[in-house]
Amino acid sequence: MPRYKCTVEYDGRPYHGWQWQEGLPTVQKAIEEAVRPLNGGEPVRLQVSGRTDAGVHALGQVCHFDLPKAYSAEEVMNAVNHRLKPQPVAIVACDIVGGDFHARFSSKSRSYMYRIINRRAPMALEQGKAWGIYKPLDVSAMQRAADMLIGTHDFSTFRASDCQAKSPVRTLDRLEVVREGSADEIRVYGQSRSFLHHQMRNMVGSLSLVGKGLWDPEDFRTALSARDRKAGGPTAPAGGLYFVKVTY
Amino acid sequence: MPRYKCTVEYDGRPYHGWQWQEGLPTVQKAIEEAVRPLNGGEPVRLQVSGRTDAGVHALGQVCHFDLPKAYSAEEVMNAVNHRLKPQPVAIVACDIVGGDFHARFSSKSRSYMYRIINRRAPMALEQGKAWGIYKPLDVSAMQRAADMLIGTHDFSTFRASDCQAKSPVRTLDRLEVVREGSADEIRVYGQSRSFLHHQMRNMVGSLSLVGKGLWDPEDFRTALSARDRKAGGPTAPAGGLYFVKVTY
Repeated sequence: MPRYKCTVEYDGRPYHGWQWQEGLPTVQKAIEEAVRPLNGGEPVRLQVSGRTDAGVHALGQVCHFDLPKAYSAEEVMNAVNHRLKPQPVAIVACDIVGGDFHARFSSKSRSYMYRIINRRAPMALEQGKAWGIYKPLDVSAMQRAADMLIGTHDFSTFRASDCQAKSPVRTLDRLEVVREGSADEIRVYGQSRSFLHHQMRNMVGSLSLVGKGLWDPEDFRTALSARDRKAGGPTAPAGGLYFVKVTY
Repeated sequence: MPRYKCTVEYDGRPYHGWQWQEGLPTVQKAIEEAVRPLNGGEPVRLQVSGRTDAGVHALGQVCHFDLPKAYSAEEVMNAVNHRLKPQPVAIVACDIVGGDFHARFSSKSRSYMYRIINRRAPMALEQGKAWGIYKPLDVSAMQRAADMLIGTHDFSTFRASDCQAKSPVRTLDRLEVVREGSADEIRVYGQSRSFLHHQMRNMVGSLSLVGKGLWDPEDFRTALSARDRKAGGPTAPAGGLYFVKVTY
C-alpha cells in the first residue's frame, strides 16, 4: 500500500479546527471525504503533523494516508483538489513516501507565523486573517522579550490548561518579531520541534503586552519563571495564526 | 460646512461594487449609512475617486463628504469605523480638506494592483482575493507586452462595452508585472490619471494570454491597434483587483 504525503493549505475560518468531530465541519473531515473515492469508497484516516484549532490557518500543514492502489502523486493531488472544491482547502504538494514516514512522528521541526495588523483603523481586508491591535507596538521591545524564550524551558506559562502533552518542556529554536514591508503589519515567526497547545498564541498574547508597554521585557522573564498559565498574558486570537511548515 | 476626505479599505466580496444601488449592499451605501448620524440623521451623499465593480477590493479608495458640524477628522474616522463594524470596510485615514477638494475631479493619478496566484493547486487562503492560474506564466514576456501599453493610446481593445467615458484615449504611466517574494504570486501594477471601465482587468486578461504563451508580445500590439474589444483577451476576474491609491 503506497503512502502519500500531502502538504495542505487552508483557510481556518469555516472549520472547527483540523480534527475530525462528529457533526461539525473540520479540515480533516473535508480531506478524508475527498480522498475516500480513491480508497474504493471506504473511509480513510489521515495522520497529521499538528492539529490546528478552530480558525487557525495553514500554508504548509502536512498529513499522510495509505491507499490500496498505486496512483501517481499527481493523480492523487488532482483528484483530491477536484473534490475539495469550492472549499478553501487545497493540496499544494503530494509525494509518495516510504512506509516508515509518519506526518507526526517523523517531523523534526514545525514553523508557525502570527500576523498582527497594528493600526488605528479596524481591519477590513484581513478580517479573520490577522489580529488587529490599535495601540502602536514597540517591535524591538517585543523582540527582546521573545529572545528570553529561545532555548529549552518549561513553557507552562504559555500552555493551554487542556494541553495533553506529557511534559511542559520544549525547545524553541526561533521566535522573531518582524515589521513587514507594509508598515502596519507585524509578524511573529516561531519554530520548534513541537509546540504545546496554544503555545504560539499564548506567547504572542504576552508579547503584545510588552509591545504596548504594559509589561517590560523583564516582566516576561518573571512570567516564564512562574511556570503558571495565570502569570501569562492573554491568548492571541486564532485568526492570526498560520501553520507554515514542517521539516522532516 | 467642513469637507472630509476619507481613505477607505474594503473587501469587495460581500458588495455589489462601490456605487449605491436600490436594495443591494454596496460600499457607498455602507459608508453613507455610517456617516448619517454625524449629519443629524439626514442622508449624506459621498463623492468617490473611482467606482469599483462587484468583488473588486480597495486598499486606498478615496471619497469625500461635507458635514454641517465641525467634528475633528479623528472623531469622524472613529465614529464611522465604529458604525461600519463588523462589515469589511474601514476608514484608514481621514483629513479635513478645503471646499475646492473633490475626490474625483482633483485626482492626478490612480493606482491599481492585480494579484495572480500562479500554481497547480487551487487557491485556498486567497479565494476571492486573487486570480488562480494553473499554467506557468512567463513574467518577462508579460512585461514586454505590458511595455507596449505605456504612454498615450486608444484603449478601445481594453474597454468594457458599457464604458461611459467620452474618449477611449488614456495615458498609462505604469504597467509592471512583478513576481512576488512568494514564488507563486504575480502582481500587475497599473497607474494612470484615469482608467476606462474594466481597463485593468482587460489588460491583465490579455497579458495572461502572453504569459501562457498563447499570444506572443507582438500579438498584443496587434490587439491594441485593432481598437476593438473583440480583439482583446478575456476580462480577468474581479477578485484579483485592488484599488491601491489616488494621488492629488
